[in-house]
Order: sequence, then structure tokens, then C-alpha cells
Amino acid sequence: MPNRRKSMPIIQFNLIEGRPESLKRELARRVCETVSEVLDVSPTTVRILIHEMGLNDFSVAGMTVAERLENSTPGVPYEKN
Amino acid sequence: MPNRRKSMPIIQFNLIEGRPESLKRELARRVCETVSEVLDVSPTTVRILIHEMGLNDFSVAGMTVAERLENSTPGVPYEKN
Amino acid sequence: MPNRRKSMPIIQFNLIEGRPESLKRELARRVCETVSEVLDVSPTTVRILIHEMGLNDFSVAGMTVAERLENSTPGVPYEKN
Amino acid sequence: MPNRRKSMPIIQFNLIEGRPESLKRELARRVCETVSEVLDVSPTTVRILIHEMGLNDFSVAGMTVAERLENSTPGVPYEKN
Amino acid sequence: MPNRRKSMPIIQFNLIEGRPESLKRELARRVCETVSEVLDVSPTTVRILIHEMGLNDFSVAGMTVAERLENSTPGVPYEKN
Amino acid sequence: MPNRRKSMPIIQFNLIEGRPESLKRELARRVCETVSEVLDVSPTTVRILIHEMGLNDFSVAGMTVAERLENSTPGVPYEKN
Repeated sequence: MPNRRKSMPIIQFNLIEGRPESLKRELARRVCETVSEVLDVSPTTVRILIHEMGLNDFSVAGMTVAERLENSTPGVPYEKN
Repeated sequence: MPNRRKSMPIIQFNLIEGRPESLKRELARRVCETVSEVLDVSPTTVRILIHEMGLNDFSVAGMTVAERLENSTPGVPYEKN
Repeated sequence: MPNRRKSMPIIQFNLIEGRPESLKRELARRVCETVSEVLDVSPTTVRILIHEMGLNDFSVAGMTVAERLENSTPGVPYEKN
Repeated sequence: MPNRRKSMPIIQFNLIEGRPESLKRELARRVCETVSEVLDVSPTTVRILIHEMGLNDFSVAGMTVAERLENSTPGVPYEKN
Repeated sequence: MPNRRKSMPIIQFNLIEGRPESLKRELARRVCETVSEVLDVSPTTVRILIHEMGLNDFSVAGMTVAERLENSTPGVPYEKN
Repeated sequence: MPNRRKSMPIIQFNLIEGRPESLKRELARRVCETVSEVLDVSPTTVRILIHEMGLNDFSVAGMTVAERLENSTPGVPYEKN
């Protein structure tokens, strides 16, 4: 089964901090299911990493999430390209 | 909607090369669906990156995928811890 | 100079493939200048990595760049959160 | 505008912990400006992630930053290659 | 020495949190030695980053390390492909 | 064995392209040995990824490796911090 032998996906999530632990567990379970199904690999070969970022550690358009929340900017601006 | 405003997940996949483009598209679509549902965020905020690795660029137990295929090693050895 | 001694930034870019080599060089030069100035560190400590992705290796809202170009989707949809 | 449609840079910074939040905000703003200008893309498509590392989580020449500070090693040794 | 001039390896570790600082230092020292020897580059060009993950930030087969510890699952299940 | 159960290191290498496949295999084998020994984990839990970069995809002090080779700059400049 070359396809299977060849695939041991490693998946890294970058998320803003603050999710409850229970949600992280559900995310790991659900994403593993989906990836295992789509790529046709055993769930046991799927590794998922979550990297949480502070509110000033992620920015869009040069403005961090913390700044957005302070300014109550309505979400992310329209992407003009 | 602070929860939503706070989340723009960036997801990086590390996969062995050789998947058809159609499968990559299905992977992007399906994983976006799952993540959007579990994290309760708009699909438009979900970014997915795929990094393909050559057969000698990924190894388990110090043995690259290429070596495994040559030696037709039956999958990955039992993880003893 | 603890500030300086403590900082050797490593910066990774994820870009869609297809940029001319000259632009990559300009990007490295200009970003190094900016980072060195903002963080007040010697340019010689700044390392920049560029990772190019294929047109089906990056997706927004579950749709790869290749699909967007085929469908001539006007850019990225409004982010609804 | 294929060039623009094709680029939504995702930039990851690895920095030693300890920078003030205000500096992170300035870094996000300034780097977004530079990248947007050099790559000729809308700032709204630029995402920047900062990953802070502890003093024993980054090393040069096998010596962590914490060890360097303890030994007050004068910066990074000459790179002999 | 083109080989040497061409190589400044940057190595990122993803580890479950909880290792003592002394072990991180030993890891940096020993891995730098090995990499420098195998790739024939000056140790001074080797940079190592360690990224620690929480017990719910890493999962195998959709089950986080925290869940494994709670269920005292005996290690990782056999990888069936 | 909580220590062991808690550790499945994932190690990512960023290297300039051009290493022979045999060297990548030796790197995977040797680094796995070292990491397994230092962290006291089973080699079967160690995963190593190699990401090769083009000569204009890695830069120090704003100058890519390709530029360095063209200008036959003697290695990396002294790090002045």
C-alpha cells in the first residue's frame, strides 16, 4: 500500500490563545478524522500540533488582534486584491 | 463576536510529495469545513498551507520514507513508549 | 547591550511561487533593514527564510489559489467575522 | 492583477521573549508596510505571526541565550565558515 | 569552501512542555555537535529553536497527550499503514 | 513512564538545497540517535522533516546565499551584537 506507507501527515495549527482545552481536543479529533478520510491514511499516523499566539502576536494588515479588539474594528478589512 | 474576531486559523500541512492536485484541493476544502465548524469561524478566515516533502526529507526512527520503501519495511515500527 | 545580545530574529516567509529571484533579494534586503531598525539589532543577526508554495498548496476559505485563478474569483471574499 | 491575486504572504517571526507589547505592534505595522510595498500586495493580505522563545529555547553554536547571558559571552562568536 | 558557505542550518524542535532547562541545554549542545559533524559546518552557524507544546496542544490519532495520560493509554497505538 | 509517554519530538530542518540524498539519510539517522539518547525516548517516536531552500530563499544580513556566492563574500560577517 505505497500510498499509505508514504503518508504520515504532520499538521500545525496557529491559533489565537484562549480556546478551552475541550475545544482543542475536539479540534484534534475532528481534524484527524477528516484528514485520515481524505488522504486515506490510518488515524494513528496523523500528528496535530497547536501553537497558540498572544493577542499581540498575530496581525493582519499590520494591526494586531489586541489593537483590533481595543478599536473594536469590525473584523478584518476587505482584502483589496 | 469576540470569539470570531479573535480567530483566523493558519494551518500548515507537512505531507510526502506525490499527491494529485485534485486531492490537495479536496483536502483544503474538507479541512476548512471541519475547522470552520469546530472553531465556529468564518471559512473565509481559514488559511491552509501545504508543504510537500521529498522521500528523503521525512524520517521516522531515523529512517527516511525512501529507505522504508526500498527495504519494504512494513510500515512504521511499534512505538515503544 | 542585553537587548541586542538577546535578539537574533529568524523570519520565515510563506509565499506563492513565481516571484523573480531579484524580488526575493530585494525582499530579504528591505525586510532585514526594517527588522534591524525596529528591533534595534545588528542586521548580521537577522536570518530570513522564504518558503514558496505551489498554486494548489495555499488556500483561503477552502479554495486553492489555482482554483481562484481558474474561476477568476475577484480576490479573497470578504471576511465575515 | 495576477501578481496581486497570487500573493497573501504569511510571515512568522521567531524572537526571544521579553519585547514590550508596543514594540510587537510597531514590528507588525512596519514589516507589513515594507512587505506590502516590496511585493506590491494589499496590506490587508499580509499576516504576521510572532513566536516568542524562552532564553533556553534558542541556541547558537549549541549554547542557549540563557547560557550566553550567564557567561556574558560577547555576542555570537565569529562564524568560521 | 562552498559546502560550508552554503550551510547555516536552522533546526526547530517541537516538544511537549515540562523538560528541565538543563535538558534543553544538553539537547542544544548535543544536537549542534551532531549536525555540525554530519553536515561538516561550523557549530557557530547552527541555530536551534525549541517550541514547547501544552499537553492538549499535541495529538496522535486525534487524541491529545493530556487525554492519553488521563486514560493511561499505553503509548501510541500501532501505526497500521 | 510519564517522561517517555510525554515525548514524541518533531524536528524540522531548514537547509540550503544541494545535499546528496545519502547525507540526508545520515543526518536523519544520526540526529534521531542523538535526540533519542538525550531525551530518553524511543527512536520510533522521533520524526524529522527536512525543508530545502533555494539559494535566494535564505539570507543573512539581508543578503541571500546566492548573492554571497556571487560576491564570494568570505562566509558570514561578524555578528556585531
